[in-house]
Amino acid sequence: MTDPVLIEVTRNGQVESRHCGMVAISDANGGLVAGIGDFARPVFPRSAVKALQALPLVASGLAEKLGLGAPEIALACASHSGEPAHVTTAQGMLARVGRDENCLECGAHWPMNQDAMRAMARRGETPHAGHNNCSGKHAGFVCLACAAGHDPAGYIDPDHPVQQQVRAALVRMTDTPHEPVNRGIDGCSIPTYAVPLESLARAFARFGSGERMPADYAQAARVIRNAVAQAPFMVAGTGRFDTRVMERFCDRVFMKTGAEGVYCATIPERGLGIAVKCADGTTRASEAIMARILSALLARDDDERAFLDDLAHAPLTNWNTITVGALRPADALNDALARIS
Amino acid sequence: MTDPVLIEVTRNGQVESRHCGMVAISDANGGLVAGIGDFARPVFPRSAVKALQALPLVASGLAEKLGLGAPEIALACASHSGEPAHVTTAQGMLARVGRDENCLECGAHWPMNQDAMRAMARRGETPHAGHNNCSGKHAGFVCLACAAGHDPAGYIDPDHPVQQQVRAALVRMTDTPHEPVNRGIDGCSIPTYAVPLESLARAFARFGSGERMPADYAQAARVIRNAVAQAPFMVAGTGRFDTRVMERFCDRVFMKTGAEGVYCATIPERGLGIAVKCADGTTRASEAIMARILSALLARDDDERAFLDDLAHAPLTNWNTITVGALRPADALNDALARIS
Repeated sequence: MTDPVLIEVTRNGQVESRHCGMVAISDANGGLVAGIGDFARPVFPRSAVKALQALPLVASGLAEKLGLGAPEIALACASHSGEPAHVTTAQGMLARVGRDENCLECGAHWPMNQDAMRAMARRGETPHAGHNNCSGKHAGFVCLACAAGHDPAGYIDPDHPVQQQVRAALVRMTDTPHEPVNRGIDGCSIPTYAVPLESLARAFARFGSGERMPADYAQAARVIRNAVAQAPFMVAGTGRFDTRVMERFCDRVFMKTGAEGVYCATIPERGLGIAVKCADGTTRASEAIMARILSALLARDDDERAFLDDLAHAPLTNWNTITVGALRPADALNDALARIS
Repeated sequence: MTDPVLIEVTRNGQVESRHCGMVAISDANGGLVAGIGDFARPVFPRSAVKALQALPLVASGLAEKLGLGAPEIALACASHSGEPAHVTTAQGMLARVGRDENCLECGAHWPMNQDAMRAMARRGETPHAGHNNCSGKHAGFVCLACAAGHDPAGYIDPDHPVQQQVRAALVRMTDTPHEPVNRGIDGCSIPTYAVPLESLARAFARFGSGERMPADYAQAARVIRNAVAQAPFMVAGTGRFDTRVMERFCDRVFMKTGAEGVYCATIPERGLGIAVKCADGTTRASEAIMARILSALLARDDDERAFLDDLAHAPLTNWNTITVGALRPADALNDALARIS
C-alpha cells in the first residue's frame, strides 16, 4: 500500500521526484478535520514530540525551581544545529545541577550547521555530546533526574525514572499504549514509540489548546509554547524551517520537525493539531507539506500566505546558484486542504 | 500514480519509512528482462550517465592523444568525494591542455567527504571548482574542447560544440530525442535530458556489451569500463557504494549513481543494462535497490551474494553506534527479481 503523492519536485517544469505521505489534522477530542493517506498507521514520531517529552520537567515545577528560562526550555524541545549559543545553553542547564556534557548519553556528532562545524574544525576542535542536536532534550532529562533526587546515570533506559515519566506524558497526551512492542531506539538512544498519526495530531491539538489534558500539563504546555515563541532560534537554528516560521508567527503556531519525515504542529487559535509523515522520510518534503498546511490554516492575509507558500514551493538551486527547479504541493494535498477552511 | 514500494526502512523490526521506485533491466536490443513501476516514464538521469557523456572524449582519440590514463578517464565519469587525489587528478587533466580549475564552470562546493572537508577547514582553505564532485567530468569537457581546437569558455551551454557532441552520444546510446522540451539544468550547470528509464537500461546494456552501437563508441566504452575497473576510487571515493562494489567485482560490473535517486549499471557477462529511479530521490534507497539487483544477477557464489545482500540490508546506526534498524528490499522488488534468472 502506498500513500498519495503530496509533494512533487520539478526540474524545468517536469516532475523529477515525488514524495508520498500521510497527514492528520485533528481537534483535541480527536475530531479529524482532515486525513490523507493511511493516517491510522503507527509512525515513530522521533524528535517531533520533544515538546511532549519536556512536559514532566516543566509540569513538576522543577524547571522553575532550577531557574530555567525561555532559552533553556526551548532548547529542551530542540533539534538544534549545534551553533555556539545552543551548546553553551545546554551546558548552562547542566551546570544548574552541577553537571557537564560528560553526563549526556546522546552520543557526539559534529554540528549540523555547516559554518559552525567548519569553525570548530578550523580551531582544531572535535565535537562532544553537547553538540548533538538532542543535547538540550538530554540536558532537560538530566535536570529532571537530578532535581528529583535520582541518579541521572542511565537516564536513556526505558526503565529509568526519567523515561518512565516521559512515557507517562506521551501515553496521557496520545491516549496510546507505549510498550516494548511499539518501541524503537531513537538516534540519541532514548526510546521512541510508534503511534498512529491521528493520535499525534490529537495530542498536539491538546498541547496547543490545553483541552482534554490535566491542569498541570496544560499549564506546562503553555509555558513551553511561550518559551519557544520567545526563543525560536533555540529550537532549531540559523536558516532552519522551525526557527524561520516561529520567528514570523510567534505563539500563533508551535511546530517541531522529527527525523524520517515526521512533523507535528499546533495552531492554538484554531484548536487544531497537525501530524505529518513523509512516507520516505525526507525532510524537504515534510517541511513543504507543513508549509502548505499552515498556508491554508494559519495565514490571515496575503503576506502571511506568500511567506508560507514560498516555503511550500522552495526552489532548487545548483552550485552556480541557478534556480533549476522547485518543490510544489501535489493535488492530493491541495484538494484535501481546499475541503477544510 | 505511485510506483511500488521497493525498499522498506525498519526500526526495531517495524517499518518506519518506505521508498517507492521504478526499475528497468534490458538487453542491448531493448528486450526487457524486468520492469517495475512506470519504467516508461522519462527521468532525468543526472550523473548516472556520466560514462556516456565521456564517450566523445575517448571515441575521438583525444583522451589517448592527451595521455589520459585510467585514473583520469575514471574521474571523467565520477561524482567524486573531493578527496585530495580526486582534486589533484582533475587539476592534472586540465594541465594537459594548459588550463587550471579556474576554467571549470561547475561551481564550487566543499568536498562531500567529511574528513576531507574538515581537513581543508583546519588548514583555513576554502573550496574551488576542483572540489566539485563533477570536476572530473568538467575537466574532461575542457580537454575535449581544447584538444579539438575549440575555446572551452561556455562549454556548459547546450549549443557549445562540447555539449553538442555529448548530446549526440546520449541520443545515439538511448535512441531518444534530447531536445529543449525534455532538457533541464543539472547541479553542475550542464544540460540534463529526461529519458525513459527503459531507454537508459538499454543504453547501458549497449555500453556493457558493445552491441548495437558504432564501433568507435564500443571501443571507447571498453576503455572507460576498464579505466573505472582499474581506478574505482576515482569514480566516487572512500566508503562510497560505487567504489566498494567495483573494487570487489572489477570489470564484471560498471555502475554509476546519479542525484535524485537514479542509478545505472551494466553487467557485461550477462549483456544486461540496469536503470533504477527511487521515486522520491533518495540515495540510500537507490543503492539498496541496486545492491539487491546485483545480488540476483551478478553474484556467482555465497560470498558474493552475502557481500551484496549486506549492502541491500544496510543497517541504521545511531550516534552511540547502536544498530537501531535497517533497510530491506520489499516484496515488489524481490518478486520481480525471482521471476528472472
